[in-house]
Amino acid sequence: MIEAIHWREECGVVGVFGAPQAAEWVYSGLYALQHRGQESAGIASMDGGRLLDYKNLGLVSDAFRGGQLDRLTGPSAIGHVRYSTTGRNTLENAQPISVSTRLGGVALAHNGNIVNAQELRREMEARGSIFQSTSDSEIILHALARAQDATFEKCLAEALSQVAGAYSLVVLTSEAVYGIRDPHGFRPLVLGEKDGAHVLASETCALDILGATYIREIEPGEMVRLDASGITSWQLFPPSPRKCVFELIYFSRPDSIVFGESVHQVRRALGERLADEHPAEADLVISVPDSSNAAAQGYASRLGLPYELGLIRNHYVGRTFINPSQAVREQGVRVKFNVVRSILEGRRVVVVDDSIVRGTTSRKLVKLLRRGGAKEVHFRVSSPPIEWPCFYGIDTPERRDLIASTHNLEEIGTYLRVDSLGYLSMEGLQLVQRQPATFCYACFGGKYPVPFKGMPTKLSMENDLEGEKHPVDSTP
Amino acid sequence: MIEAIHWREECGVVGVFGAPQAAEWVYSGLYALQHRGQESAGIASMDGGRLLDYKNLGLVSDAFRGGQLDRLTGPSAIGHVRYSTTGRNTLENAQPISVSTRLGGVALAHNGNIVNAQELRREMEARGSIFQSTSDSEIILHALARAQDATFEKCLAEALSQVAGAYSLVVLTSEAVYGIRDPHGFRPLVLGEKDGAHVLASETCALDILGATYIREIEPGEMVRLDASGITSWQLFPPSPRKCVFELIYFSRPDSIVFGESVHQVRRALGERLADEHPAEADLVISVPDSSNAAAQGYASRLGLPYELGLIRNHYVGRTFINPSQAVREQGVRVKFNVVRSILEGRRVVVVDDSIVRGTTSRKLVKLLRRGGAKEVHFRVSSPPIEWPCFYGIDTPERRDLIASTHNLEEIGTYLRVDSLGYLSMEGLQLVQRQPATFCYACFGGKYPVPFKGMPTKLSMENDLEGEKHPVDSTP
Amino acid sequence: MIEAIHWREECGVVGVFGAPQAAEWVYSGLYALQHRGQESAGIASMDGGRLLDYKNLGLVSDAFRGGQLDRLTGPSAIGHVRYSTTGRNTLENAQPISVSTRLGGVALAHNGNIVNAQELRREMEARGSIFQSTSDSEIILHALARAQDATFEKCLAEALSQVAGAYSLVVLTSEAVYGIRDPHGFRPLVLGEKDGAHVLASETCALDILGATYIREIEPGEMVRLDASGITSWQLFPPSPRKCVFELIYFSRPDSIVFGESVHQVRRALGERLADEHPAEADLVISVPDSSNAAAQGYASRLGLPYELGLIRNHYVGRTFINPSQAVREQGVRVKFNVVRSILEGRRVVVVDDSIVRGTTSRKLVKLLRRGGAKEVHFRVSSPPIEWPCFYGIDTPERRDLIASTHNLEEIGTYLRVDSLGYLSMEGLQLVQRQPATFCYACFGGKYPVPFKGMPTKLSMENDLEGEKHPVDSTP
Amino acid sequence: MIEAIHWREECGVVGVFGAPQAAEWVYSGLYALQHRGQESAGIASMDGGRLLDYKNLGLVSDAFRGGQLDRLTGPSAIGHVRYSTTGRNTLENAQPISVSTRLGGVALAHNGNIVNAQELRREMEARGSIFQSTSDSEIILHALARAQDATFEKCLAEALSQVAGAYSLVVLTSEAVYGIRDPHGFRPLVLGEKDGAHVLASETCALDILGATYIREIEPGEMVRLDASGITSWQLFPPSPRKCVFELIYFSRPDSIVFGESVHQVRRALGERLADEHPAEADLVISVPDSSNAAAQGYASRLGLPYELGLIRNHYVGRTFINPSQAVREQGVRVKFNVVRSILEGRRVVVVDDSIVRGTTSRKLVKLLRRGGAKEVHFRVSSPPIEWPCFYGIDTPERRDLIASTHNLEEIGTYLRVDSLGYLSMEGLQLVQRQPATFCYACFGGKYPVPFKGMPTKLSMENDLEGEKHPVDSTP
Repeated sequence: MIEAIHWREECGVVGVFGAPQAAEWVYSGLYALQHRGQESAGIASMDGGRLLDYKNLGLVSDAFRGGQLDRLTGPSAIGHVRYSTTGRNTLENAQPISVSTRLGGVALAHNGNIVNAQELRREMEARGSIFQSTSDSEIILHALARAQDATFEKCLAEALSQVAGAYSLVVLTSEAVYGIRDPHGFRPLVLGEKDGAHVLASETCALDILGATYIREIEPGEMVRLDASGITSWQLFPPSPRKCVFELIYFSRPDSIVFGESVHQVRRALGERLADEHPAEADLVISVPDSSNAAAQGYASRLGLPYELGLIRNHYVGRTFINPSQAVREQGVRVKFNVVRSILEGRRVVVVDDSIVRGTTSRKLVKLLRRGGAKEVHFRVSSPPIEWPCFYGIDTPERRDLIASTHNLEEIGTYLRVDSLGYLSMEGLQLVQRQPATFCYACFGGKYPVPFKGMPTKLSMENDLEGEKHPVDSTP
Repeated sequence: MIEAIHWREECGVVGVFGAPQAAEWVYSGLYALQHRGQESAGIASMDGGRLLDYKNLGLVSDAFRGGQLDRLTGPSAIGHVRYSTTGRNTLENAQPISVSTRLGGVALAHNGNIVNAQELRREMEARGSIFQSTSDSEIILHALARAQDATFEKCLAEALSQVAGAYSLVVLTSEAVYGIRDPHGFRPLVLGEKDGAHVLASETCALDILGATYIREIEPGEMVRLDASGITSWQLFPPSPRKCVFELIYFSRPDSIVFGESVHQVRRALGERLADEHPAEADLVISVPDSSNAAAQGYASRLGLPYELGLIRNHYVGRTFINPSQAVREQGVRVKFNVVRSILEGRRVVVVDDSIVRGTTSRKLVKLLRRGGAKEVHFRVSSPPIEWPCFYGIDTPERRDLIASTHNLEEIGTYLRVDSLGYLSMEGLQLVQRQPATFCYACFGGKYPVPFKGMPTKLSMENDLEGEKHPVDSTP
Repeated sequence: MIEAIHWREECGVVGVFGAPQAAEWVYSGLYALQHRGQESAGIASMDGGRLLDYKNLGLVSDAFRGGQLDRLTGPSAIGHVRYSTTGRNTLENAQPISVSTRLGGVALAHNGNIVNAQELRREMEARGSIFQSTSDSEIILHALARAQDATFEKCLAEALSQVAGAYSLVVLTSEAVYGIRDPHGFRPLVLGEKDGAHVLASETCALDILGATYIREIEPGEMVRLDASGITSWQLFPPSPRKCVFELIYFSRPDSIVFGESVHQVRRALGERLADEHPAEADLVISVPDSSNAAAQGYASRLGLPYELGLIRNHYVGRTFINPSQAVREQGVRVKFNVVRSILEGRRVVVVDDSIVRGTTSRKLVKLLRRGGAKEVHFRVSSPPIEWPCFYGIDTPERRDLIASTHNLEEIGTYLRVDSLGYLSMEGLQLVQRQPATFCYACFGGKYPVPFKGMPTKLSMENDLEGEKHPVDSTP
Repeated sequence: MIEAIHWREECGVVGVFGAPQAAEWVYSGLYALQHRGQESAGIASMDGGRLLDYKNLGLVSDAFRGGQLDRLTGPSAIGHVRYSTTGRNTLENAQPISVSTRLGGVALAHNGNIVNAQELRREMEARGSIFQSTSDSEIILHALARAQDATFEKCLAEALSQVAGAYSLVVLTSEAVYGIRDPHGFRPLVLGEKDGAHVLASETCALDILGATYIREIEPGEMVRLDASGITSWQLFPPSPRKCVFELIYFSRPDSIVFGESVHQVRRALGERLADEHPAEADLVISVPDSSNAAAQGYASRLGLPYELGLIRNHYVGRTFINPSQAVREQGVRVKFNVVRSILEGRRVVVVDDSIVRGTTSRKLVKLLRRGGAKEVHFRVSSPPIEWPCFYGIDTPERRDLIASTHNLEEIGTYLRVDSLGYLSMEGLQLVQRQPATFCYACFGGKYPVPFKGMPTKLSMENDLEGEKHPVDSTP
């Protein structure tokens, strides 16, 4: 498996109520959300009180190539794509999770991460629950099944009042499809409509592929119920928005509207602001395709520099690439990217990327650019240094593996072998947001909005950002 | 899928403690028990407290052909083969079921059927349990996890005190492998030893393939624990043996010792007794291979008639046979059997079968024999008429589909188009057993040893066997 | 892969003209001929001048499980099953071979072996032919395409006049299906009829599964053409029958008629004759199932000894059995066979087998029988010692690996650890045949009917059979 | 299968001599050439005179995922990726084709199309050749095998002197790897070097992924032999270059050097020239990603308009997308592309594409842009109208399905529903080329450099380009 450029993506969810064959809509929606998870795909549908489901490893189109979609009949359905991990048979962790409970058949698909999963699990096991997966999402279903309230909605609310962390959920019952976001709204969830049917999805690009109209976001702490009578909404918890800023910086598709904002426009504005903070004397600007395209364009246009397509991405990557023997192994990043020498040759190049995680890929990219003829390489990052792991649904490495957590800018620049290096500042990032206080910046500053056992210690935010004060822009 | 000759087989289980790579032993054991279930196969092993498992559809050798066995490391393991059903993706019902509980990781493989599963499930769901399969076996794990006793053994005992029905279980924990039989001992379970390691298996043929020595049966109501210190035994419930007589008549392999008896010898004795009860004027005796071979031999030798191999079985059957179009469809039983014309031509033939379920296959066989040249066909059955469904682990049709439940002998004989028909009597069957009172005969007489909701009504056993009083042996 | 008991089987062919969907008939026929080859299966059909085909590795039912049969439309078709070899991707050698030639589309399926293949191939390559497989059968198609005669039949005749060796062929063209046997008729080929359609097959069991009527054998040196006007026959070559006697002894199914004889009856007679030549003082007779059943029955009945089912065969074997680690590896023959201890315990046992090739499996069987309690083991073989490899379509080991080629009877008996050993004599074998001079006995005596380059040297037949003069029957 | 945007791509070839495990290098090279063919992938290697190969349907990474690469040992190897066709089992047409000939084992991989294939095939069949595929490439091997010259090189030359059309070939023998281009050099073929090993590939991006150094193009009509002694070259035919201009316009990767030119730079220049010929009053310029990116950038920069990423491509497309039912079917182009509304809303948009084939996809794109908010849509095409099918290796539709063949510009503009439409002129296209006379423009003007049977009639080139004289730029 090729290493991901930055960090592994997370999950995507879709829910549909009221379509002729809802699973087909969900399939298309998952197809549009494929960038959010390539490990496994699954769909559950409800037909006349009968819960049907199918899950498989691989991309949506591969997972369902055996005609399984035809069997997922019925007017309501939910689906899930899951990010990639390595070395384990993870089908048991694929979603949706479909179970039988006192409330009938229920299926659930979850984007996010429950931070008190271990405690809840231990407590539930002590009370006699059995767990069939290692997924934190299974806990929500146990809590739901144990809730003793009168209605399904109240049970769901009671269950969710116990779990802490990040969750954008779609839930399928014999009566309805539910969409829920945690009170902080870490992960996105949008609502759309087409031909009288309603659609829930992680991003609007899943509505677009269906030709559905975007209605609005599900609000932090809100639960909506889609059923034959339309949409009903409950505010389960008082909203306290801490939306994941990296959804805008990196995860979501640029053509999506996420958290009410055009992802493309936010990225472009980040690039413009980055240009103000860290201009460069250079001949041209290139991006690390495709997630940094908009930021690079913003950067270039602000400085009046040409934006060029100097790095080409092999779009067949993402599938298995067989580990070649030693002789070829070093080809590394070349499997994914190649340079356009005629663009780079003899030029001073600014390369804009959206983030640096471990720094290893960035280093290889710089080497590739220099071999491609670049005379100077100026690295610009359209987000602040990542110093803290995420615990709300993103698969980040441990703290010690985040290069910005253990090295200052000068050291990073030396490691990357760049002529200059500049990160966007926290202030710059916040300036770009319309409501900066509603976002989570834990990965930059270590201020975790939802505390949990085993949080990284020494959370001295001031100290963490100090490195920012000594930029190495002028490094030769 | 080719229809099974009689009824679908049930399940087979294996457990090993103390082998270098226990999963390999389990694999071989399951291979020997393949006749007990062809739908799915699974193995769970325990390595240093880590529970590993793999399950797949298909035969053992197909299910594990991808090298999965290598990953199932550790000195203890259990396994399961499951019988065949049609038209559903049943991987979720494959076993062993592996779960995480307050008692740690537990895997379970079950041969049998829990008759109060629906009630228990409803009650557990009411108390907040979620079910991920439709398997009755999952209930045992829920009951185990909910038990509040001090030791694992006591919890298991408490759990099993709630379930009624048939169960031969192997259970894997981080410390031990357990083997348990229900108080009636419906299904077999034997214990063996090799090189200091202990082996549990449904039949002794699974010990033989390993070169393990047969020690003894697990007793009805007994639980044994295999661990580093050897074997510990508990009599969980007072024994009340009602062993499934069909294990001897049909299910088990003839080379196995089951319930302490040589299956081959019992079948041979049934054939001899059948000869005493229903002799025939004929030229030769043939069996319906392979399950009736011993009975046919017994029948033949008792009457001094030659035993001949007049029916040949295609041993590649059992796999998928594509449904051909109308023109070829009628070939039916010919896919499975063919006659040796040189044996049958112009002869008066006794065909011995071990049982008749629906009668449809028997009818086709008789037609095949006549087309093969048989001048007369005398049908003999080495067990009494099956009039009642089994609820203890065998997949029988509903009562109305059991031909002997709705037709008397004369009618059956007419339907089969035989020259004479004779079933072994209940008395004859019991005469052959050494301890006739320790067996379950519910499928013949409707006397169900473990009552349950929804039992077939009008259980007037006397009436049920009346048909037996009017044999149609003399039908021309 | 489990080693074959004796030697690997060869190939089976089927051809159909005039059925509504001929490929379905061929599929069923191949299913019945599965014992002749398990490595690969293939079918070619002709629909309106369009040649369609599909080949795959594995058993017929596995190879075609993806619905490929439906696409093989048309009223004529041929098929092939191929024996098993190891360690190579052999799909390119699967048959039928379908090609385009100046005579139009042609498909061919071949049972047998061309002994001058290397010479012909070299010569054809010298004249500009290219070979896409290593199969000797491809040569026939090249020769056919190069033939310059006026009609397809004449071209086929010309092509076959060049090839020496064993061939039973079915050939498909846009007009007809052809069946051809080499002048010696080494391999069988029969003709049947159903509903106006004609069927060619290696054995009659393939007619039986279709409910087709057996008409007759294709004669040695004969070519038949099945087409819309019925059957046309040509005697291409003067017949010089040297039919493979091992088709009767071992390869064919006992329910087949092969070379005009009931396979079952021949085997039974071989057993009877063996009893005359090598009686034994024993308590019972068992067979090595299933190929030796009839011979063992014949042996037992001649001596008035009981025939018992003391060895049970696991009929799921033949599929992949994963190579277990050292600890379990020695289980060897136990994967395939198990004993019925209650039959063997304390008894003097005669075990009848149809042949001994290397002797290794026989030795393990004897060990198994002794461990199963047999007091004495008397080994009887219903054919003479195999001392020479076959070059006419059977995959035998090299001469030095044939135990009877390098050891005398006493040595073999010692190696097998038997109490006595007896092979049927050549005279005995010939006495059983109705036309003994029409068979090939090359594997016993080294008299190869069709000479070829690289034939084993020192073909002193007298000497080869000398060993027979010193039987070791009396070995304790 | 999703319809290709323009036309289906063709094939890619790689050859390596002198690497430790050459097949691994070929694998990586094919990975980089994946855009040239997604239907099947294959590699043949030579190890000690033994020719090994493996071919499979699907992408390179899928086709070889079963570990087959490890078995393709040896220091020399060739490989092939093939374009996608629909509805047939095309494994038999996958390449390399590996055969045995009088010259030994030979494997061949071909990019291009032989225009006299039918005649040659008929003639060869008449002389006794048999064809196992419908591939025109098989003919080259037959011709090679029939050539009677002294050396392999001379035989190859003789064979190629018979075939007309387009061929860039890599050929593997036990001694060497050959690279050959037809006299017109329709398809590209480049030579590189790494660590003493030599590499042949369709494009330089396959050298880059290996870290190999680009040496030069193979010349039209040239044959090179890579072997232990280095590179030997022959000019087999006098060069008469007619290189496919669409390799530069559309097929090749922008990071490749093809025909000695940077693909990116050529496309950019085409866009600039297009701007000169057909400027537009607009707010921004977008491309149809990714093949038109460079042209759109060139267009935008020439006019001083902003280049924006208004269309986003789903890079998981290209795999199977299950045909949904009617309700979702109309989503069509939305599966592949989505708009960024925030970019398009209320703007006058120029969309630059590299070509228009049928026009159906372009029409859907325009609709998508308008729904995405574009106020005006000005369509610009960076190549002249395609009016003639290609017969030299590109899978184009028939002439009547090429929109520009049957409609004038005004009609096309009306069909596309654009506000204006402009194609680059032939003069403009040629102005951009450094050696315009060395290219093939048959698809624009119908002047086919290599004549063949069945060429489209009425080749009045003057007339064909007339439409160009009445641009519809001013259409409202």
